[in-house]
Amino acid sequence: MAVIIAGAGSVGLLLGSFLAEAGLDVMMLVRRKEQAKLLAQKGIERVNEDGTKTVVRVNATTDIAELPVAHFWIVAVKFSDLRGFLAQLKERNMQEPVLFVQNGIGHLALATETDLPHYAFATVEHGALRSDDRVVRHNGIGMLTVGAGRGDATLFNRIEEARSERFPISRHADGEHVLMRKVIINCMINPLTAILQVRNGELLTNQHCRGLFAGLYEELMAAFPEMRPYLPLETVQTVCKNTAQNHSSMLVDRLSGRQMEIATIVTAIIQRAYAVNKTLPLLSTFEKMLYAVDRKEER
Amino acid sequence: MAVIIAGAGSVGLLLGSFLAEAGLDVMMLVRRKEQAKLLAQKGIERVNEDGTKTVVRVNATTDIAELPVAHFWIVAVKFSDLRGFLAQLKERNMQEPVLFVQNGIGHLALATETDLPHYAFATVEHGALRSDDRVVRHNGIGMLTVGAGRGDATLFNRIEEARSERFPISRHADGEHVLMRKVIINCMINPLTAILQVRNGELLTNQHCRGLFAGLYEELMAAFPEMRPYLPLETVQTVCKNTAQNHSSMLVDRLSGRQMEIATIVTAIIQRAYAVNKTLPLLSTFEKMLYAVDRKEER
Repeated sequence: MAVIIAGAGSVGLLLGSFLAEAGLDVMMLVRRKEQAKLLAQKGIERVNEDGTKTVVRVNATTDIAELPVAHFWIVAVKFSDLRGFLAQLKERNMQEPVLFVQNGIGHLALATETDLPHYAFATVEHGALRSDDRVVRHNGIGMLTVGAGRGDATLFNRIEEARSERFPISRHADGEHVLMRKVIINCMINPLTAILQVRNGELLTNQHCRGLFAGLYEELMAAFPEMRPYLPLETVQTVCKNTAQNHSSMLVDRLSGRQMEIATIVTAIIQRAYAVNKTLPLLSTFEKMLYAVDRKEER
Repeated sequence: MAVIIAGAGSVGLLLGSFLAEAGLDVMMLVRRKEQAKLLAQKGIERVNEDGTKTVVRVNATTDIAELPVAHFWIVAVKFSDLRGFLAQLKERNMQEPVLFVQNGIGHLALATETDLPHYAFATVEHGALRSDDRVVRHNGIGMLTVGAGRGDATLFNRIEEARSERFPISRHADGEHVLMRKVIINCMINPLTAILQVRNGELLTNQHCRGLFAGLYEELMAAFPEMRPYLPLETVQTVCKNTAQNHSSMLVDRLSGRQMEIATIVTAIIQRAYAVNKTLPLLSTFEKMLYAVDRKEER
């Protein structure tokens, strides 16, 4: 049985590449006919960190109606397309397990609203950059952390066949915790770097950034005290240090004139804090500033 | 008797031009010999809004020791140079009246610390841009508001001889109030436009900016409630509207790679609020963000 991957952006291509390399039968579901044709004809090409290339065969289609029953799905569409995509799955009365790999945490609520019997969440910490419709550059090895959501988590076990040195996988019993951990780190790094247009390392080396960074950490931990033991300030600092020369994903989107993922990373966390009667004044200020400049670089 | 103008940046040149045009005997005190020579030989050239040019004769020197006793001084040096300049005046045991025309309000405390028997403050709302050492472009007519500080305010009366349609002058009994009014408007417009790199009008037309703008107004008025009757939100909005297409002075400095006037505009207001046991959390956040990017554009 196939693993169906919906969405062939950088994450969809990277996951498809590693799963197919491990011998799984990968079927890519994409929106454009040209991309489906190209993927079916030539496969996915992954450019590894060492410059070598790995090409794998995959199936591909644009037609959700012609898909076979799958072992499980990986939904790798953008968060902004997810609501519409889930409506399509509902129409199809999908019963297969679904692994969500979106950034942020906005999709947690969307998943909960579905009738899907089985789903899980994964965070992807690889550096991946789509070069074209079938080529993805693997710029940095990171963890794929799969956290259980609803139903039977063992249905996703076959993903572990893809585990390797280049593709480490970690399993976790609580998908919500996995998402929260990643999204809090994102909230610490993305808004400030995107607004100030600085590299990640600057948050530690610039004394004024450092003050804002520490203030943001404290207000997040006051809102979500249960996360503090799992996310000491030093851990977030280490992420900044290890990615010091990188632009954060939000800054990359801003500099490329693409919409930033403000809703699912920042707004979703503000709403979760609000739900437990906490406010995040600093993050809320950054949220407004991000929306103010989102896709405004033409000026 | 001469009026001595210390500092020949855009404001010094503009004031010198209008005062000399009105028949006052203007002496420019500058730092560089070439500029003094050029000003003494060729005078100040003002390019008016309608494109016409007005050239006036002035005296100029670099040597504070050779200056005659003046009718009054206009100190138009940058805030960051003011402390050192006041030390020079103290050494000279200056007794003449001094009109301070710096941006912001940081200089109020510096003036108070001097032994000067007479001083006043003025805010300059003209658009002025220095083209070179002796040429200033007058890009927009605005008010020169002179507010009394210490001593005899009538000693500055002769400045009114320069009053004209192009150079309106307003006198006010309270210099501190004059400075506060201008600096609060600056705090409302400068930090946000400089951080987000947007034109002044955007603060009203962009809904996310508008929210931050309104929040900033409320925290400033909570800290300085005595200013509210003199500065309704509509007044600040009108300033934004009238300068909608302009870059704020802080944004101009940022885009030119010059140091922004954060200390005398933003930090000074935060300190004044602190002195009355008020905090300005939004403005303090913007202050850190401004310092974080100040003269960092090379990245």
